[in-house]
Amino acid sequence: MTIKELTVAGSGVLGSQIAFQSAFKDINVTIYDINEQALTKGKERIETLAEIYKNEIEKAKESYNREANNIKYNQNLLPSLDHIFLSEVTDSINFINKIPGKITFSKSLKEAVSKADLVIEAVPETISIKEDFYKELSKVAPKNTIFATNSSTLVPSQFASLTGRPEKFLAMHFANNIWQNNIVEVMGHEKTDKAVIDQALEFSKSIGMVALPIQKEQHGYILNSILVPFLENALALYYNEVADVQTIDKTWKLGTGAPMGPFEILDIIGIDTVYNIMKNYADTNNDPNSLHAHLAKMLKETFIDQNRTGKASGYGFYQYQ
Amino acid sequence: MTIKELTVAGSGVLGSQIAFQSAFKDINVTIYDINEQALTKGKERIETLAEIYKNEIEKAKESYNREANNIKYNQNLLPSLDHIFLSEVTDSINFINKIPGKITFSKSLKEAVSKADLVIEAVPETISIKEDFYKELSKVAPKNTIFATNSSTLVPSQFASLTGRPEKFLAMHFANNIWQNNIVEVMGHEKTDKAVIDQALEFSKSIGMVALPIQKEQHGYILNSILVPFLENALALYYNEVADVQTIDKTWKLGTGAPMGPFEILDIIGIDTVYNIMKNYADTNNDPNSLHAHLAKMLKETFIDQNRTGKASGYGFYQYQ
Repeated sequence: MTIKELTVAGSGVLGSQIAFQSAFKDINVTIYDINEQALTKGKERIETLAEIYKNEIEKAKESYNREANNIKYNQNLLPSLDHIFLSEVTDSINFINKIPGKITFSKSLKEAVSKADLVIEAVPETISIKEDFYKELSKVAPKNTIFATNSSTLVPSQFASLTGRPEKFLAMHFANNIWQNNIVEVMGHEKTDKAVIDQALEFSKSIGMVALPIQKEQHGYILNSILVPFLENALALYYNEVADVQTIDKTWKLGTGAPMGPFEILDIIGIDTVYNIMKNYADTNNDPNSLHAHLAKMLKETFIDQNRTGKASGYGFYQYQ
Repeated sequence: MTIKELTVAGSGVLGSQIAFQSAFKDINVTIYDINEQALTKGKERIETLAEIYKNEIEKAKESYNREANNIKYNQNLLPSLDHIFLSEVTDSINFINKIPGKITFSKSLKEAVSKADLVIEAVPETISIKEDFYKELSKVAPKNTIFATNSSTLVPSQFASLTGRPEKFLAMHFANNIWQNNIVEVMGHEKTDKAVIDQALEFSKSIGMVALPIQKEQHGYILNSILVPFLENALALYYNEVADVQTIDKTWKLGTGAPMGPFEILDIIGIDTVYNIMKNYADTNNDPNSLHAHLAKMLKETFIDQNRTGKASGYGFYQYQ
């Protein structure tokens, strides 16, 4: 079965991006959210995404300035290449303009999933909300529909028994800013069918993603399993006043050839997001003297309370313009 | 005081590189090692480094092929630029040829350090060897001589009391392949004079290094404090069969924009080096079921025992050529 009908549950930051990107790749998309107010916000997000996608394409047009960029090809042999490029840009922009009108919005879960091959769940990251959602979804969805959670911090086995189809349930973890960070970590739990994982991988590719298969359930998937402790160790050096932010970033970049140091990455991810992760660890361990507790307190007091939340806000570990 | 007289104690891989690079930057260098046999090996290393430095410069010459690289400048305004470049290459190669003859070699520690402004200790990474060395050194060195340890895993406070000059003792941690990885982490212990740290920073810059000041004693300095747990978390994903090496590397590169993933970095560092670190942790904790113990066992059995030690050996996590 090729997935052609997608329902995205939850029209927040990630949900709307998954929906938009899928529609952009010619999937029939329905967005479900709990009430009119949420749906109105979701529609606004979709309109904003249309502008973002068009801007990205305009940027491509600028970078295709052949003469300024010294791009050379034989115009005798390829006389219409410029024309082809520009007409593709126009076609793409025209298509993007139609996307908001092509997406179906619904506050009835039953209606929203009635034809779905795949439901991607992007509802709030709260266990009880997700549990209630899967209980309801399992009642109204066709029995062949695949369910995927986009949860960043929870794992599919936590909800599998509520889905009524554990073998058709898995995680598909998308990254923020899907139009440039086009990766999906695809991860089943112990009882997920191999064939369902393959379908999810194939679907991911069909909507322009690099699909990253994970063989075994893992909290934090691949990226966060490495990235979170990486950031944590850099934060510990800063917290312990071993070195300043610039020196730590410089050391990492010179030592490994990476284009960004840990604090530049922190500023992009957003200090509030990293604070939530540290706070969550600290609350789980319940030790006020743990490193996580100290780091969470510092991030809150020195950064978040001073409106230093990262690059998007203009000021984090570094100041931006 | 500007440091002009350097003694490097220990003519192993790092010691010989520090000596050569310093001599290349016009410092008067003496190499001390324990006996004739060790000094002969040290002399061979210095000769090899002369070849490596010359090859690097020849590479620069190749990359300066103006036409092939499409490098443009106004030849009317800058008629002798090519000539200047080529004559600098020739001067540099002539200078490198003289370096092995300019370095003094000695197996008498007293003689080797008699005029030293700075002694950089690069003797084997064994506590008792370093302790014996500092006891002897403190007796024979002029009282103004600064001592620096290049130890990767130990910290200066462990030896400060043996130096007879704790305030003139610190760590200067160089990276392997000094001619391209030109970084020095400069780290005092609690009693190191601020002025001595400044001299070490200034000296580092004078021999072409990027000097990275560390404000507080830290095991692993900056780089290894972040890099070692980074590699460890990636190894844990592989050991637990969460994903394959290629997928993990791809995820890190796509997720952070880095040019290399953890396993590509591991292959460059050398699996034997990382094994030694894991083994050392495992032995310290003395728990055969710790993650470090499992990782050390895996690195030994699956890699080192199969001659898969990394890129230098042609085969590690990846196969080369």
